[in-house]
Amino acid sequence: MAGRNRDIENELIATAHAVADAARAAILPWFRRADLSAANKAAEGFDPVTQADRAAEEAMRTVLARRRPQDAILGEEFGRSDGSSGLTWVLDPIDGTRGFLSGTPTWGVLIAVSDESGPFLGVIDQPYTQERFVGGPGLAEWTGPHGGAPMTTRTTAGLSDAVLFTTFPEVGTPDEGAAFQRVAEQVKLVRYGMDCYAYALLAAGQIDLVIEAGLQAYDIQAPIAVIEAAGGVVTDWQGGPAHGGGRALAAANPSVHAAALDLLRSTV
Amino acid sequence: MAGRNRDIENELIATAHAVADAARAAILPWFRRADLSAANKAAEGFDPVTQADRAAEEAMRTVLARRRPQDAILGEEFGRSDGSSGLTWVLDPIDGTRGFLSGTPTWGVLIAVSDESGPFLGVIDQPYTQERFVGGPGLAEWTGPHGGAPMTTRTTAGLSDAVLFTTFPEVGTPDEGAAFQRVAEQVKLVRYGMDCYAYALLAAGQIDLVIEAGLQAYDIQAPIAVIEAAGGVVTDWQGGPAHGGGRALAAANPSVHAAALDLLRSTV
Repeated sequence: MAGRNRDIENELIATAHAVADAARAAILPWFRRADLSAANKAAEGFDPVTQADRAAEEAMRTVLARRRPQDAILGEEFGRSDGSSGLTWVLDPIDGTRGFLSGTPTWGVLIAVSDESGPFLGVIDQPYTQERFVGGPGLAEWTGPHGGAPMTTRTTAGLSDAVLFTTFPEVGTPDEGAAFQRVAEQVKLVRYGMDCYAYALLAAGQIDLVIEAGLQAYDIQAPIAVIEAAGGVVTDWQGGPAHGGGRALAAANPSVHAAALDLLRSTV
Repeated sequence: MAGRNRDIENELIATAHAVADAARAAILPWFRRADLSAANKAAEGFDPVTQADRAAEEAMRTVLARRRPQDAILGEEFGRSDGSSGLTWVLDPIDGTRGFLSGTPTWGVLIAVSDESGPFLGVIDQPYTQERFVGGPGLAEWTGPHGGAPMTTRTTAGLSDAVLFTTFPEVGTPDEGAAFQRVAEQVKLVRYGMDCYAYALLAAGQIDLVIEAGLQAYDIQAPIAVIEAAGGVVTDWQGGPAHGGGRALAAANPSVHAAALDLLRSTV
């Protein structure tokens, strides 16, 4: 983050909110639409999540074209657009498409801003519940339908007190699933099915660990920035950077991170 | 429901809303409380979900004592209170306590009104997201932060198009888990972790099946009433009544119910 002044950071934060607002407006009309039910023959062959995904990324890119034309963009739907600033907006308009299609409010809009070191500003937005989790330079806060608060991760020291989340019980490959089980056997509680919302809960001090595999860069960059700003640690399963995608271990603090990493590190 | 006139039904529906409102107000101050984190030593040995559970059931019983003193009550926290009307209010102030403790908005307040045949009016309320799913005589509707709509279950005919939910992958005993897996192998998508919210999604036409075991009567009576009012079917794993608790198969329609029941029926 060297060389960026506070004015630029504030502009990036304001732009991130504007991008999230645009995505919310574009996606919500598609969520739980009655005419998308199996009863409606006209809906056959129609993929609502693709429609919502594309509409949202287009809306996000429109905001960025106006406010930050000098920045690059990496988006799930429309790929990479070059920039000149050294900054890249990393966008996943709907993370958790299977949750979206099931009507669960566990999917989210992921927005990150990265430089050559990785993401330093992130937003996890849940349009339906109207929750937004934001982390960046000097900033870690969430807002929701009943107000908001600063975010601080938990101080849970050991696995025996930890709450662990992942989305699918199989996690990834059989080796990855076995590694997850090694951690799962040591923790207090394992829960599933929360998509990117689990990372938001970790940042907000509600849970201790999220372990996933098979991620894309746009799946994990916003969670990294949000969680690190709140005091947490996110790495791959070797303890290295996770912002390129693949396997991720997100932890509330260095202690619980180290304990989980010990059990994941040997994974083939 | 023979012998009840529309005026009584309307009074029961209005009372159910008042009971749900009271539970919301009692529970929300306890959800995601910052001083419940592991960081706060004063919180040690303190069980927030028990506090919230009790406060909510007391608030619900206060409403019922005022509006329906002639009805019996069966509540998770305070047990059974006798009545003279032949009607019983079946209350679970927080269904999904582990979800509650993890900060996920998947827990809910369950309210049912039963007569000698079982539940005929039900409410599934999610205080944090401000969603309420209500089903009863001539009534099947949900309201949420972006409005509301009538509820109709899906018309999915076969398992191969079905979306199946349960809260924990192990489901119950090993035999019960194996039975669940027989269905899981046939469906399009399996998701976990939604607590009672999964039943609400089924009633609202978002998913097709929920299969659970080890239930109490107060866990399943409200879902039965809500789902049946929206066009769905809820039975035990033998096709009999489920309102006593135990194993439940909730399905969007008779066709997908029959297909799942075939795979569950032989469970020891």
